[in-house]
Amino acid sequence: MSDFDARLDRYAELAVRVGLNVQPQQRVFIRATRGEPEFVYRVTRAAYRAGASLVHVLWEEDAIELLRVQHASRENLDLVVDWFAHAFNGAAERGDAILLLHSPDPELFAGIAPEQVAAHRRARLGALRPMLDAQGRNDFQWSVCHVPNAAWARRVFPDSAPASSVTELWDAIFSICRVDESDPIAAWQTHIAQLAKRCQALTAKQYRALHFSSAQTDLTLGLPRGHIWAGGASTSRKGIVFAANMPTEEVFTLPHREQAEGYVTTTRPLSVSGVLIQNFTLTFENGRITRVRASNAQNVLETLIATDKGAAHLGEVALVPASNPIARRNQIFYDALYDENAASHIALGAAYRFTLEDGAAMTAPDFCAAGGNESTIHEDAMIGSSEMNVDGVRADGTREAVMREGEWALEV
Amino acid sequence: MSDFDARLDRYAELAVRVGLNVQPQQRVFIRATRGEPEFVYRVTRAAYRAGASLVHVLWEEDAIELLRVQHASRENLDLVVDWFAHAFNGAAERGDAILLLHSPDPELFAGIAPEQVAAHRRARLGALRPMLDAQGRNDFQWSVCHVPNAAWARRVFPDSAPASSVTELWDAIFSICRVDESDPIAAWQTHIAQLAKRCQALTAKQYRALHFSSAQTDLTLGLPRGHIWAGGASTSRKGIVFAANMPTEEVFTLPHREQAEGYVTTTRPLSVSGVLIQNFTLTFENGRITRVRASNAQNVLETLIATDKGAAHLGEVALVPASNPIARRNQIFYDALYDENAASHIALGAAYRFTLEDGAAMTAPDFCAAGGNESTIHEDAMIGSSEMNVDGVRADGTREAVMREGEWALEV
Repeated sequence: MSDFDARLDRYAELAVRVGLNVQPQQRVFIRATRGEPEFVYRVTRAAYRAGASLVHVLWEEDAIELLRVQHASRENLDLVVDWFAHAFNGAAERGDAILLLHSPDPELFAGIAPEQVAAHRRARLGALRPMLDAQGRNDFQWSVCHVPNAAWARRVFPDSAPASSVTELWDAIFSICRVDESDPIAAWQTHIAQLAKRCQALTAKQYRALHFSSAQTDLTLGLPRGHIWAGGASTSRKGIVFAANMPTEEVFTLPHREQAEGYVTTTRPLSVSGVLIQNFTLTFENGRITRVRASNAQNVLETLIATDKGAAHLGEVALVPASNPIARRNQIFYDALYDENAASHIALGAAYRFTLEDGAAMTAPDFCAAGGNESTIHEDAMIGSSEMNVDGVRADGTREAVMREGEWALEV
Repeated sequence: MSDFDARLDRYAELAVRVGLNVQPQQRVFIRATRGEPEFVYRVTRAAYRAGASLVHVLWEEDAIELLRVQHASRENLDLVVDWFAHAFNGAAERGDAILLLHSPDPELFAGIAPEQVAAHRRARLGALRPMLDAQGRNDFQWSVCHVPNAAWARRVFPDSAPASSVTELWDAIFSICRVDESDPIAAWQTHIAQLAKRCQALTAKQYRALHFSSAQTDLTLGLPRGHIWAGGASTSRKGIVFAANMPTEEVFTLPHREQAEGYVTTTRPLSVSGVLIQNFTLTFENGRITRVRASNAQNVLETLIATDKGAAHLGEVALVPASNPIARRNQIFYDALYDENAASHIALGAAYRFTLEDGAAMTAPDFCAAGGNESTIHEDAMIGSSEMNVDGVRADGTREAVMREGEWALEV
């Protein structure tokens, strides 16, 4: 077996044993792309070896989606592929372990009319709503991990030859996902245990607010009563521990939707619908964005924020040390999972129900009244850097250092 | 555009315009395999250009099936992937145009316990029963066509280098499917019109029986009253003309299940569950196989014939001139569609309802009483050659030449 094959197998084992934590006689559903079928075969084999009763794979093809968005009439974009929705929603309802493999092409829809892309996306999200809701509640074990493709690799490593850029991207993924550690599973277990410990400590603190400060940022985010810090491992309704994201470096909770005050400047580019916004400054009053100043594509950002009422409020605040393995590579990945785990960030749009005590059981108005935010968008904006300080503000108004110059200051 | 790309596009156009005959605002469902995604993209684009409202593609992967058959317990092989069945059955029920792309690997399951393979196959066929039944009635437009893969090409051209064997197989497919004619669509329309004319003439004859004779064969097949010769084009319930098979060279009908008498020797190998049976002789009495003599793998043949009651009777007799474009290549394709269209053949097992007047509306016992055969198998055995003579026996017992030395003798 080649070294590359061995690393692929270890990555597949991680996805099955840590990401999904497949249980004996459980069904496994894989949403695959054609990026790297060899990896899908290895995940499938690993899942059967872990005792899966049935591994079913739904392959999606960017090229087919692209043809649809290019050729279908506006009305026909609303047609739902019923079996496609049934595959996801049925797996979620049955409690399968669901592996979502991504192989992004950041420029797939470049040059397509935005309304066509938006209509396609809306139809898709609408059809998958039951699964997405169940996923938001962690009803089942699920995990997201990535495989390279030529288009993505070319975007990340534009100066490399096509063949070697794919290899470089695999190398980056293997390194960031700890595949190259001597015992990757043990390394992941240690890593997510550390994240869990930090979450427990932060949740126990119940800060009234976080204060972010650097030369370009002065932002105070109120945190609602009963907020929960999450990160690393999740627990399904049946009590199975799994790792929803590979990689994952963040711990995160929800800010109070009406308690953001001040301004913040992004430190890494944001990719929205294929447009890269280099940096921008957001000003908040009573939780709402009242001013946007972008270096480019200001209209794209303004359109995003105008998507719905919740799009101008925050749904997540995440802390990531500046020295993390993704940031150390000093690389833009043009992918939310890789880029958001590179730096502390805030997310415009929806909050996760599980980041608020009893949030899963609340009605939407109750969730909002408690400080949670609802929106159809959830867009991460990176604000962390090695110059960022973060203070925790206690209930009595006193403060303590949470991060200093981008690194953890709070001992756990 | 390269010459190869242009030929791929012409093949895709044939599949959409002639094979499926896609209608404006119709949905198109494609069952694809890993073989040649580029061809699937071209079919998808051609289908949108023909006015399809939605093209939905279900990709299957031999490697995933193989892992399942290798690893799943016997009981777990009965688990049905519900959305997979829903995809096919739903498309059939809605009346989509259904393209079944095949990219066979003749040795996929070599070395796997036959019970595992059989259980897997049974579960699959059971789950797809509604679609298969509707297909048998031509409720919707459907077409089968093939794309090469490395394993299949290696088997067909064992003496060629791997890369060139795939090219050789494409060349063979393009040539056999008339893709290289100056106007492939017109060539197909002429071809299937000729087949249709022959079918009409043969159906009008209403022969009481066909008599096959050569040095190794002396077989009389009774034909039931109201038998219908089919071939080339089919007509869906909505009246849309389509070509179910690409390639297609045969005209066929059903023999009476209880009226085969004599013996017949195959002229081309039969591939059953990955085993190649070079030649064999079957002896019939009152329609039933009473004796089997095979050059090899006699037990595989005996197992096949013992599958169920109908497996020892015939369900199809097809006439193909010995000079047809597939036979002229003097090549075994290890695939039913390509090999059956190379020579006149008989099929053990199920008869097609549409080859008997009012057959579609009959109950199973009525269909059998009228001379039709029911079985879970349908296995073609090639019996034609340039030495074969075929006579038609009229109701009054007089005879006329239908084929002489493998070529049509009957003028139409």
